[in-house]
Amino acid sequence: MRIKEHLKQLKPYQPGKPIEAVKLEYGLDKVVKLASNENPYGCSEAAKEALHHEIQQLALYPDGYSAALRTRLSEHLNVSETSLIFGNGSDEIIQIICRAFLNEKTNTITAAPTFPQYKHNAVIEGAEVREIALRPDGSHDVDAMLEAIDEQTQVVWICSPNNPTGTYTSEGELLAFLERVPSRVLVVLDEAYYEYVTAEDYPETVPLLSNYSNLMILRTFSKAYGLAALRVGYGIADENLIRQIEPAREPFNTSRLGQAAAIAALDDQAFITSCVEQNKAGLQQYFDFAQTHGLKCYPSETNFVLIDCNRPSDELFQALLEKGYIVRSGNALGFPTSLRITIGTKEQNEEILAILAEIL
Amino acid sequence: MRIKEHLKQLKPYQPGKPIEAVKLEYGLDKVVKLASNENPYGCSEAAKEALHHEIQQLALYPDGYSAALRTRLSEHLNVSETSLIFGNGSDEIIQIICRAFLNEKTNTITAAPTFPQYKHNAVIEGAEVREIALRPDGSHDVDAMLEAIDEQTQVVWICSPNNPTGTYTSEGELLAFLERVPSRVLVVLDEAYYEYVTAEDYPETVPLLSNYSNLMILRTFSKAYGLAALRVGYGIADENLIRQIEPAREPFNTSRLGQAAAIAALDDQAFITSCVEQNKAGLQQYFDFAQTHGLKCYPSETNFVLIDCNRPSDELFQALLEKGYIVRSGNALGFPTSLRITIGTKEQNEEILAILAEIL
Repeated sequence: MRIKEHLKQLKPYQPGKPIEAVKLEYGLDKVVKLASNENPYGCSEAAKEALHHEIQQLALYPDGYSAALRTRLSEHLNVSETSLIFGNGSDEIIQIICRAFLNEKTNTITAAPTFPQYKHNAVIEGAEVREIALRPDGSHDVDAMLEAIDEQTQVVWICSPNNPTGTYTSEGELLAFLERVPSRVLVVLDEAYYEYVTAEDYPETVPLLSNYSNLMILRTFSKAYGLAALRVGYGIADENLIRQIEPAREPFNTSRLGQAAAIAALDDQAFITSCVEQNKAGLQQYFDFAQTHGLKCYPSETNFVLIDCNRPSDELFQALLEKGYIVRSGNALGFPTSLRITIGTKEQNEEILAILAEIL
Repeated sequence: MRIKEHLKQLKPYQPGKPIEAVKLEYGLDKVVKLASNENPYGCSEAAKEALHHEIQQLALYPDGYSAALRTRLSEHLNVSETSLIFGNGSDEIIQIICRAFLNEKTNTITAAPTFPQYKHNAVIEGAEVREIALRPDGSHDVDAMLEAIDEQTQVVWICSPNNPTGTYTSEGELLAFLERVPSRVLVVLDEAYYEYVTAEDYPETVPLLSNYSNLMILRTFSKAYGLAALRVGYGIADENLIRQIEPAREPFNTSRLGQAAAIAALDDQAFITSCVEQNKAGLQQYFDFAQTHGLKCYPSETNFVLIDCNRPSDELFQALLEKGYIVRSGNALGFPTSLRITIGTKEQNEEILAILAEIL
């Protein structure tokens, strides 16, 4: 078989070490993983409760249209049901967009560094990927991204807040950008960390959809909602756009349990409020640490921080691993002297910062 | 945005009527769905049990490598761990194969009628789809499929047993076919209904993998294992082939709960044996009915039957719906006077056949 040439340049997924294996290898009783931006407070109890009923129906296919979740989410967002598309995590929506719009004759524009799945999926489709360096403050250089657009540009990706820097594109910048992007170019605004943002000039983008039929917003139940195990993400856009890309969605792509848990999670906004407050305090722990130690820490509006420790990040990663803390080495993320650390509970943050203070 | 031309010819998923809506519309207390080849006996109790632990970990991403399920399944199948790939249902493996091997310069060969996702995904990639009519007995015309292969052929799909006829490709036919297929052409053997087959000349195909590096077998936990709600399918092939296509797999494509339930389900083979026995008796109910009424019923080796009722199938579908039985009209499946009915419990089969006897 002649596999597509583009695939040969991509690496298959490299499995990380399971927690149990880390315990065994380093003789540790406790291992804390602050590597995948998971919610340290879990998820709403209501979401767990909702699953007990579904467990009695495992033999039944999920509703391929996610009708109940669709109705509930459309109310929550105040959008029409037909302006939603659900995915097996927002990862899958990224894949659907790439399958629908990209091929060898097209190009797509991303920031760099940013979430790697935009590029990964674009490469599979054979599209040219134009990567525009972040500004020194970690934010998207939207002017440079705009300049990179040409006749073959199909999709521009704005990750806001951006992974791995945690920085966002302000309302003013976004609006100016959207005004100038040709309407034939799809702008995908990945707001995976939307719920965590507290900055006042972070744009509320759903109302913009009525003005920009070339805008699509991506969100997820995997982060603040704490349902990463169940893989439910979604896209919001003009219903014509949604209708066009729907055939590229697998018919039963979200699970019965994922749909049920997501509905229950939406009903418990008190849980989200509580998590966001605690996260905000947690972020401050890291900001204070960085200031005390004279380290650069990007002004994150997410549940993670990227701290430049001025040391090879793989070494720091390994040193923390041996103490029982799994973080992300910035080396694989385009920041070879930084660590990306998920905001944990107050105690977890204190512990890891104490260890980091020792190591540095 | 210029959506890919190929997508325009595909229809988005059409949601079926939910059971509750059918009840309301036709004033029914009970509605039985025998339309999606779901297991009427549910799933192993052990699979349900396994989920209670996982529900406490919803905020944690699944293991992207499905390491524990991989180990357990490799033991069960007696294959190496690296010869497995997992999907969000086997639907996703079909998508991965198409993404990895098909484009506008290639073609792919399927039976017709067969499971529609092969063609659907091939069309998205822009490949030519060569559809070879089933033989009158409902089986694949492997000789004609072989003749359709040319230099641009990348993938041949054999659905065995075939959906919607339930017929299989015998060991003799398959071996002769594999011997003659050029080794540069991938043969995908979709065995979604593998566990239900009792025919003696149905081939045991896993041992063939060591002889044919161009063979890939697809199976699923959605049918006999009764875990359709959780979306776990898998592919088995030469480890070089698996390694090549892995980059086209989404990193977290199977859920934490799906992985846990699948492991527990594999451990309970007594459940599978019991379901297969009861299914066999259920099939006989339909075969007897067809004989009594002089109707053609394909010799299914699955948990569904395709019965030619010599009447427009949409009318029969509607008549059964109004009595509280949801089946699949053959019209959408390429058999406009047939019904595809999932084998239910003994009582469900008796009830639907009594109604069918009245209608016909």
